[in-house]
Amino acid sequence: MSLLTVGTVAFDDIQTPFGHAERVVGGAATYIALAASYFTRPVQLVSVIGDDFPEETLAQLRARGVDLEGLQVKEGEESFFWAGRYSENMNHRDTLETRLNVLADFDPVLPESFRRPDYVMLGNLTPAVQMRVLDQLEKKPRLVAMDTMNFWMDTAMDELREVIARVDVLTINDEEARQLSGEHSLVKAARKIHEMGPDQIVIKKGEHGALLFQRHDDALHGSHIFFAPALPLADVFDPTGAGDTFAGGFMGYLASTGDLSFENLKRAVIYGSAMASFCVEKFSIDRLLELTPEEIRERVQRFVQLVNFDARLEG
Amino acid sequence: MSLLTVGTVAFDDIQTPFGHAERVVGGAATYIALAASYFTRPVQLVSVIGDDFPEETLAQLRARGVDLEGLQVKEGEESFFWAGRYSENMNHRDTLETRLNVLADFDPVLPESFRRPDYVMLGNLTPAVQMRVLDQLEKKPRLVAMDTMNFWMDTAMDELREVIARVDVLTINDEEARQLSGEHSLVKAARKIHEMGPDQIVIKKGEHGALLFQRHDDALHGSHIFFAPALPLADVFDPTGAGDTFAGGFMGYLASTGDLSFENLKRAVIYGSAMASFCVEKFSIDRLLELTPEEIRERVQRFVQLVNFDARLEG
Repeated sequence: MSLLTVGTVAFDDIQTPFGHAERVVGGAATYIALAASYFTRPVQLVSVIGDDFPEETLAQLRARGVDLEGLQVKEGEESFFWAGRYSENMNHRDTLETRLNVLADFDPVLPESFRRPDYVMLGNLTPAVQMRVLDQLEKKPRLVAMDTMNFWMDTAMDELREVIARVDVLTINDEEARQLSGEHSLVKAARKIHEMGPDQIVIKKGEHGALLFQRHDDALHGSHIFFAPALPLADVFDPTGAGDTFAGGFMGYLASTGDLSFENLKRAVIYGSAMASFCVEKFSIDRLLELTPEEIRERVQRFVQLVNFDARLEG
Repeated sequence: MSLLTVGTVAFDDIQTPFGHAERVVGGAATYIALAASYFTRPVQLVSVIGDDFPEETLAQLRARGVDLEGLQVKEGEESFFWAGRYSENMNHRDTLETRLNVLADFDPVLPESFRRPDYVMLGNLTPAVQMRVLDQLEKKPRLVAMDTMNFWMDTAMDELREVIARVDVLTINDEEARQLSGEHSLVKAARKIHEMGPDQIVIKKGEHGALLFQRHDDALHGSHIFFAPALPLADVFDPTGAGDTFAGGFMGYLASTGDLSFENLKRAVIYGSAMASFCVEKFSIDRLLELTPEEIRERVQRFVQLVNFDARLEG
């Protein structure tokens, strides 16, 4: 089934303890689309770039079944650029520079063929842009997910809450969930965010994994909760894009199966986590260009071994 | 099968955002013994207290099958006392006061009936005291586990490494694992700690769960790894003793089953995590005095629901 995604397609400049990747390809929509492309077709990408973006990357996206009809190319302008540096232990990153460039006045226009997607993943962007995409849809999708960040909570909370009220799934990191809800406990935070709209919430905890909450019919019982760890890795080479890759794998898997049961949402979280575990193994999108179905199956099997146990309950 | 444990039996003064518990019962051996008592008998406790310790607590321990023959009572002296305050979000705690009292010159003496235990859990204490306990054993136990803390790494690293070299399981928190190994990656940290002796390492990550590492026969493949989350709770009332309760549940479950396969070690980690999730629900040992087998089964079942999934791998 079709998956529509909107988000940045950009250049990143990344410094980690392992090295410095200068002006490499990045962007939320790039990671989302590539990760999803391993599961479902078509993946319809809505974004904007300048005329400085490498044709090679566009060809790689097309080769993976990503439909770029919704990708605007602004002649004489530059693509979005972000530079950041990770701390020694990778737990913290500082933004060194952000150049909005083409993103400053981005008005997403959905081509006719993009207006009836089955699944929608709104990558992290101005809430107003996310809303513009939803407003152009001519049919209610089966599932709409969105990502966001603390910056929009600080600067555009009203618009952000309007978008959140219209989506089925919110993906957000733990600190952002706390900021959005005003609750330290993630269980309580999820309850408050359910009240804002989304029936499903994925709280991403980076190296500590991800929690999936689904609204419970019986409010007394809170949410259904599922936890997926991050794969313990000897080296995390570059965490950039891991959250977007998770979202792409999660939504791509759901779109490919068409099954929105909680059991299948759990599997989607595992597939998303597996894709994210590949993303961090190399700089930029490099690892996401070369995966095989066999590698993905093998990686998911490692998650099974990592967490599944036989409770052998007695009595 | 029998489980011998050594550790503090003490008073705690605990301030959390939920309240202030003044001079309540605490101590590593207290938590370990109570948690283990739900799984195996006898639990043999080695520790020291002053004549200020409540007879009621000793009666509660005895009622739960804990053998106190190895508990020294020093007339005219005071029990170990620790005071601490947790931060607003419970992620950090400051020690306000530590009074060693009877612990200052504690010389553990194992009664004759304590010298041939099947399982041993060395609670966090001076490495020299942990060693003294091992030296008095007259038969090699099936499994020896130990807990420790950063304080001993700072002040008694040589003795600490001697004890670590003699145990099968080291339980340690993530920051301590990093300090002990000099590695930030927990996967690499575990490899280095395996080299120090223990075939099994449990790295406790508090609200982020616990990782079990088992040395792999084939060194190229690193360790077998299992991950157990902490149960997401709306309120963590008081985290004091959670790590010791984990260790007690873990070792108690192993002692009750007598099965040291990796599959059973995984279950033991889950049982330990379940017991720890009870511990934090009330101040002091209160919750650990009132559990039923049914509650423990129900709690373990929540872990099953939280992490188990059907991968439904194709191809």
